[in-house]
Amino acid sequence: MHRAHVFISVLAGGSGTRFWPASRKGWPKQFLALGKDPHTPLIAATVARVAPLAPAERTMVVTGRALAEATREMIPRSIAARVLAEPVAKNTAPAVAWATRVALKEDPDAVLVVLPADAYIEDEDGFRTALERAIDAATSGAIVTLGVRPSRPETGYGYLHVGQATEHPGVFEVLAFVEKPDLPRAQQYLRDGRHLWNAGIFVFRASVMDAAIREHLPEVWAGMNEVDAHVREGRGAEEEAIEQVFPSFPSVSIDYAVMEKVARVDVVPTDCGWSDVGSWQASWELGDKDENNNVVRAEDPTLVVLEDSSGTVISAPKGKIVAVIGVDDLVIVDTPDALLVAPRSRAQDVKRAVDALAKRGKTGAL
Amino acid sequence: MHRAHVFISVLAGGSGTRFWPASRKGWPKQFLALGKDPHTPLIAATVARVAPLAPAERTMVVTGRALAEATREMIPRSIAARVLAEPVAKNTAPAVAWATRVALKEDPDAVLVVLPADAYIEDEDGFRTALERAIDAATSGAIVTLGVRPSRPETGYGYLHVGQATEHPGVFEVLAFVEKPDLPRAQQYLRDGRHLWNAGIFVFRASVMDAAIREHLPEVWAGMNEVDAHVREGRGAEEEAIEQVFPSFPSVSIDYAVMEKVARVDVVPTDCGWSDVGSWQASWELGDKDENNNVVRAEDPTLVVLEDSSGTVISAPKGKIVAVIGVDDLVIVDTPDALLVAPRSRAQDVKRAVDALAKRGKTGAL
Repeated sequence: MHRAHVFISVLAGGSGTRFWPASRKGWPKQFLALGKDPHTPLIAATVARVAPLAPAERTMVVTGRALAEATREMIPRSIAARVLAEPVAKNTAPAVAWATRVALKEDPDAVLVVLPADAYIEDEDGFRTALERAIDAATSGAIVTLGVRPSRPETGYGYLHVGQATEHPGVFEVLAFVEKPDLPRAQQYLRDGRHLWNAGIFVFRASVMDAAIREHLPEVWAGMNEVDAHVREGRGAEEEAIEQVFPSFPSVSIDYAVMEKVARVDVVPTDCGWSDVGSWQASWELGDKDENNNVVRAEDPTLVVLEDSSGTVISAPKGKIVAVIGVDDLVIVDTPDALLVAPRSRAQDVKRAVDALAKRGKTGAL
Repeated sequence: MHRAHVFISVLAGGSGTRFWPASRKGWPKQFLALGKDPHTPLIAATVARVAPLAPAERTMVVTGRALAEATREMIPRSIAARVLAEPVAKNTAPAVAWATRVALKEDPDAVLVVLPADAYIEDEDGFRTALERAIDAATSGAIVTLGVRPSRPETGYGYLHVGQATEHPGVFEVLAFVEKPDLPRAQQYLRDGRHLWNAGIFVFRASVMDAAIREHLPEVWAGMNEVDAHVREGRGAEEEAIEQVFPSFPSVSIDYAVMEKVARVDVVPTDCGWSDVGSWQASWELGDKDENNNVVRAEDPTLVVLEDSSGTVISAPKGKIVAVIGVDDLVIVDTPDALLVAPRSRAQDVKRAVDALAKRGKTGAL
């Protein structure tokens, strides 16, 4: 059920060490199957999840040039999304500016849904329902974000402080974007019911966002004009012009550069079971568990043998046999060239191991 | 300092699952570097350890045909031992019979030292001193074994019950070969000082052993005669004849078939720090430990990062990066196609995992 004028832009930059060694510099988190389905990469699930909202030719994925080819292969063949390959990583604002301009040129009435490639959603119908509400409000000119009702006093997320209802049912004003809180404040946010997690999902008319970028990021807006002129005047392909202008763009998030500065942002609260899958702990929570609460992430789970073990998450490469005996609550992440073993509760400390490897000059596996 | 007439026969058959996945059907324990030196396979250390006692051309290694080529490559180049490749595994008695006959044909006064390929010795000088005593006694016609003074009430070994002194200094009579005891008896053996571990190391004149085999294993003796006749009469190579006769030999240990039946066996007690390296636990005990009692068995230990971890033994294949964070007393054994993670104290339960894999038909990695 595609809605007229809706465009999708999946933001698939990103790097990080939290899922090392499964994730690498050239193999980011969104390529990993960290959600409930151990066979579907997060980016493939993300694209498929929003596919009912827009046709394939109006779906874009913005990623780094080095990831473009692998990204194309990750996306379901039935959704031949257009991949916008950034020559350099510049955080999310330039990515959104580019996608906005692409949509605007194709359809002056375009409504753009921007969302990260590496989150997980439990209730996909609920998620799309929330997006449809946001699309309705955005069609009327609002910049709308999705706000996830908190289920715990999370200190790792930014929050949206919710104000009064708007004229659109289920849509509220945002009073403020709130930085990651300390635990007492996170606990208060959980109690007061007026704070929602900022999931980094935005919906807006391309024309509205283009105007906001003109105001708050004029150098990016001018750069995108230069790209358009380059193509329009027959000077060459869009990629060439992007190559020219992107390096001069500031590296800044769309939240910070635009959303927190525009006069008004609205929010659709949702209980769609969103997770940013920020750690192996989160991936274990999402995964299908055996009778002893183990989660096996492997192409062929029959190659993984667990004896007297519980609460353990195992990620194994294709064809690898893994035998785990008598352990509890571990993370065991194997890849062809690197292995991690740690308690699930300490998996985030993988950064220490990565730093130690970097110090030893073993940068090939980072 | 080679002694005249001394021949060495290293018994390197053997298979087993205790070191899976580092050991496999086609890659037995003696190929692994499980002793103090993480770079030297047990079989290479064994051959090098006895090299001062006999020249390379009088050193034999008896192994299975499938292991012959790899065995040759494992042995230090300076010791071009002769590899006797058995067409089928028949336990140790036929292997000893073959090596005995080879030595006897080359030197009627041959004294043969038979020892397993997969043990570890801490005090190599003490070990060779004990062997030299055994060689002296064997030269006079005795069948002599080495007996290791127990350092703990071990229930996993056979024992030698020691009797009176012989005319040779430091050499005693063996009253009986004792099966693996239960714990109370093992504790008694430790206290009484009259019981030594049977390390499976024997020294004898080849002529004496040949006569003992004639008496106690007549079909093997006759088979070896047939092999000799085959070669002597120009009917073909020794290997062909071995191929013919070996399958008909009984599969029986030299201990059971001969040693326990001959009228007298002598023993040289020794404190040479012998270990049969029967488990990852034993390998951890032998290994060089870091300040947190971790043992790393890897070609390049700088690829292994341990953070806040203790008492853990890690075996990693060439080039593999291993990061271990916040764990205690684990065994982590990685190989290109299989991985084991277990508490060190439960590493012997790897058999359960191997059985589970076999049941699932994953026999390729066993």
